[in-house]
Amino acid sequence: MKISARNVIRGTVTKIVQGSVNTEVFIELPGGNEIVSIITKESAKALALKKGKQVYAVVKASNVMIAVD
Amino acid sequence: MKISARNVIRGTVTKIVQGSVNTEVFIELPGGNEIVSIITKESAKALALKKGKQVYAVVKASNVMIAVD
Amino acid sequence: MKISARNVIRGTVTKIVQGSVNTEVFIELPGGNEIVSIITKESAKALALKKGKQVYAVVKASNVMIAVD
Amino acid sequence: MKISARNVIRGTVTKIVQGSVNTEVFIELPGGNEIVSIITKESAKALALKKGKQVYAVVKASNVMIAVD
Amino acid sequence: MKISARNVIRGTVTKIVQGSVNTEVFIELPGGNEIVSIITKESAKALALKKGKQVYAVVKASNVMIAVD
Amino acid sequence: MKISARNVIRGTVTKIVQGSVNTEVFIELPGGNEIVSIITKESAKALALKKGKQVYAVVKASNVMIAVD
Repeated sequence: MKISARNVIRGTVTKIVQGSVNTEVFIELPGGNEIVSIITKESAKALALKKGKQVYAVVKASNVMIAVD
Repeated sequence: MKISARNVIRGTVTKIVQGSVNTEVFIELPGGNEIVSIITKESAKALALKKGKQVYAVVKASNVMIAVD
Repeated sequence: MKISARNVIRGTVTKIVQGSVNTEVFIELPGGNEIVSIITKESAKALALKKGKQVYAVVKASNVMIAVD
Repeated sequence: MKISARNVIRGTVTKIVQGSVNTEVFIELPGGNEIVSIITKESAKALALKKGKQVYAVVKASNVMIAVD
Repeated sequence: MKISARNVIRGTVTKIVQGSVNTEVFIELPGGNEIVSIITKESAKALALKKGKQVYAVVKASNVMIAVD
Repeated sequence: MKISARNVIRGTVTKIVQGSVNTEVFIELPGGNEIVSIITKESAKALALKKGKQVYAVVKASNVMIAVD
């Protein structure tokens, strides 16, 4: 499957925090940056996410803001 | 200003494509990854974005999806 | 690729309206419903979207609101 | 009230999963497709959502991605 | 129609900037604050938006970030 | 830090409801309007949010819909 989202960045799951409906997933990028994602608990289970797993962080371009110092 | 968005990633503007209302901004991260952002033309002007400028890509955690192969 | 987005709905592209940065894509679902999507012109090109093509509309659950009469 | 969101699709609530802040709502569309929504617990209460209720799933066009096989 | 979005704020359209696919709409709130919205050109037409018209700005709570000085 | 989000509205925190992963924050605007935000519990802690604190509600223009009666 190929998706229209312009940002598909490979990384590794480093931590998972589970809530009642949502789950917080920490992903480390090769350059050392960390990305945090909130997905449903159901999705985290369906994707069999766990520490160390290789995943992609996927973000639609219209959801990326820009800031300057 | 400090923001609640969990993802604030430093990078460098590499390309800007301007539309009638929206502007597409390409940001290169230190690790070599590229992030694409769509913001309004007005915002791109207000932030004085141009090629080579140091910026931050800002993404709310609830807007990050996860994919696996 | 398998994605965390909970809504992945199959349909057929029925119309494409191209802007300077964004493209509007109309997708007809089997049940007769129509879904409208705004993606970047670049993505529409990368996916080779055209009238009649089978695609999936993908929506993160946190982006679905509910209304009642 | 008429809203700018381009996607307003009628369906029936089939399941509700309640969290501490958010609630997950499953909606069945006429064609058999299912849509999952995450709204606040407060909203689910305010709309008196329950199994069998007729509702609309509402999605802004800029939040719809497209994928192809 | 009653919607799950937690933020439905009444205001007055003060300016409309039209693009090829999207339209930028400026809304003045009673307290003097201004809200800017990007919707499709098609939606702006369907709602017959024009300067001076009374409207509601509608925002899902999960799309509101918080910043501090 | 200056951000591309077009809507940055000053207000006062009036209530905080904490979940397992997400936190719901109520912000009162000068004109009397109230804005509700869902951010991660982690962010609410990092910003030291509490009742009475001056904050900004930040919303990207593409996340603002418009409704009419």
